[in-house]
Amino acid sequence: MCAWRKSNDYRHFGRRATEPDARIGRLSLGLEFYFYEPNAESCACGLGPRIQADYQDFDNLKKFADAVDVITFENENIPVKTLQFLQQYKPVYPGIEALRTSQDRLFEKTLFQELGIPTTEFMPVNNADDLTAAIVKMGYPVILKKRTHGYDGKGQLKINTAAQLQDLQTDLLSNSIVEKWVSFDREVSLIAVRNPSGQTVFYDICENVHNNGILFTTKNKINDPDFELARGFVLKLLDKFQYVGTIALEFFQVGARLIANEIAPRVHNSGHWTIEGAVISQFENHLRAILNWPLGDCSSLGYATMYNILGQLPDKIKLLQDGRVHLHDYHKLPKPGRKIGHYTKIMAD
Amino acid sequence: MCAWRKSNDYRHFGRRATEPDARIGRLSLGLEFYFYEPNAESCACGLGPRIQADYQDFDNLKKFADAVDVITFENENIPVKTLQFLQQYKPVYPGIEALRTSQDRLFEKTLFQELGIPTTEFMPVNNADDLTAAIVKMGYPVILKKRTHGYDGKGQLKINTAAQLQDLQTDLLSNSIVEKWVSFDREVSLIAVRNPSGQTVFYDICENVHNNGILFTTKNKINDPDFELARGFVLKLLDKFQYVGTIALEFFQVGARLIANEIAPRVHNSGHWTIEGAVISQFENHLRAILNWPLGDCSSLGYATMYNILGQLPDKIKLLQDGRVHLHDYHKLPKPGRKIGHYTKIMAD
Repeated sequence: MCAWRKSNDYRHFGRRATEPDARIGRLSLGLEFYFYEPNAESCACGLGPRIQADYQDFDNLKKFADAVDVITFENENIPVKTLQFLQQYKPVYPGIEALRTSQDRLFEKTLFQELGIPTTEFMPVNNADDLTAAIVKMGYPVILKKRTHGYDGKGQLKINTAAQLQDLQTDLLSNSIVEKWVSFDREVSLIAVRNPSGQTVFYDICENVHNNGILFTTKNKINDPDFELARGFVLKLLDKFQYVGTIALEFFQVGARLIANEIAPRVHNSGHWTIEGAVISQFENHLRAILNWPLGDCSSLGYATMYNILGQLPDKIKLLQDGRVHLHDYHKLPKPGRKIGHYTKIMAD
Repeated sequence: MCAWRKSNDYRHFGRRATEPDARIGRLSLGLEFYFYEPNAESCACGLGPRIQADYQDFDNLKKFADAVDVITFENENIPVKTLQFLQQYKPVYPGIEALRTSQDRLFEKTLFQELGIPTTEFMPVNNADDLTAAIVKMGYPVILKKRTHGYDGKGQLKINTAAQLQDLQTDLLSNSIVEKWVSFDREVSLIAVRNPSGQTVFYDICENVHNNGILFTTKNKINDPDFELARGFVLKLLDKFQYVGTIALEFFQVGARLIANEIAPRVHNSGHWTIEGAVISQFENHLRAILNWPLGDCSSLGYATMYNILGQLPDKIKLLQDGRVHLHDYHKLPKPGRKIGHYTKIMAD
């Protein structure tokens, strides 16, 4: 969780500009950053002062809110109560309703239905009978998912046959949903940004390839035939939430249909190509949005491919021998399957 | 002055990654930064740990050298002795000879002559007689410059008539040079990067407009007719110095001739457009060079114009209403004539 001050008084935090070097980094709007993070290790360290404390530590939350002008977050695992507390003191963007919805697959899918956004058939699962009833209705294969806290393929299981029902982990049988498996042509996402004045901008659709539930590559698709359809669905969400900031909506494409899968109320991995591949990135536009500044041009600068680096870094020298590669090393400890960086390559055609 | 560690052990400095956020900034090669700076205020603060000490403080210089793998600098006003001391312990790039040359206009112009790089007529000035003799030879107008420490039009005076000789500041009459005034068609610069393996890359020529001796705007000129000529001259310098890092050479263009004016042995203000306007920026390529990594593609991504922000920031909201503007606010205290930021706009044609 982090926050920005609009003030130009850079002595406020007892040290100088905490953003990336204005002459080097891309993020140089003259903002100062202040972070709140429960974990000792955090990507944000070095970018600004930080409070390391629990999300339930209201004294520290108050101290944090007092120090800043506006608050935002970059993951969905922050308790709603934490944000409710903070927003008594300072604006918190994107809003709590978007966060609450994205935290729970049942709320998310239900909202899609309400707004007329196509989504896969689903049913809540709180016991083995619920699951059996759903399978009778949907037929195999289905996918069983925890309603909360699943990401990158965690907390979910594809069920192809009745045999698998025998040795299901019991924790998957409560507070879960089951969805009809979708045999898709491709996975795409659309990233949009909206500011409080209602200005709304869209990046090009991205085509995503996942391996074992983890995003592997993203390509931007200039003039994608599904853009207008996807845009209409995202607009419904932005309008419903009176959303402020960057949002991603993931879809399965099946023939002429787009089937909404997941909302990410934040900058999104499938938008990392925008750092070098779009005029103004999803990150900068998120900041502009929460400050109610004019949003930047989202046009693609070329044909981008973003490759996630999972587990451990490749040989940097070898990778950089391609002079068009932009490497992003997150300085994270290597761990099998962990996203520890990405690289992007932009081609003119 | 700053330095980089190639190590991936990010706990080395007792804190985490000190580079801009890998997912936000453009500079995300997995490097750690350590700074040495005599002034209390410094743009680099927040990007890494820093030693604040004099350039003559050899104990602290030793501590600095011990902590890093390779050392570079970003201005010419570092004493040669400081770098000589440091290079006993760690590589210092660009080399000391390039620094020494760029620190003294007499050395610089003399080197241009030696290498057959055209430069304006010049003579050393150590007293009033030297100046009179030079004017007799060259004719008015001339420009009188301190050999050392002048930049952004400081420490220099254009002399148009004999009347001006009466009340010359005496400090301009020693340790100076006088140059024949050049009536140029335009000012251009060429920025190159070379690594220790000898790989050398060039950005497009930039066309520069100065106001009162301070750079005002830069435009990259794709397929400029003077590119090959300028490239040949820069190659002579790179070869002479066995140069490592980013270098800029400034020229006056007069008809079909390029007249070398100044060397900058560092990343250069006229290359700030490369942050968004070239595939890989002069900053990232400087780092790759001093690490002897492969250099990145210098191709322009479009037609860039970089505007320096002097004195005080314009209204940000107004400026950003043009969605293609990239703003760089250096977080410096406003002061008349001071470079406190820049912005860049890239057009497709």
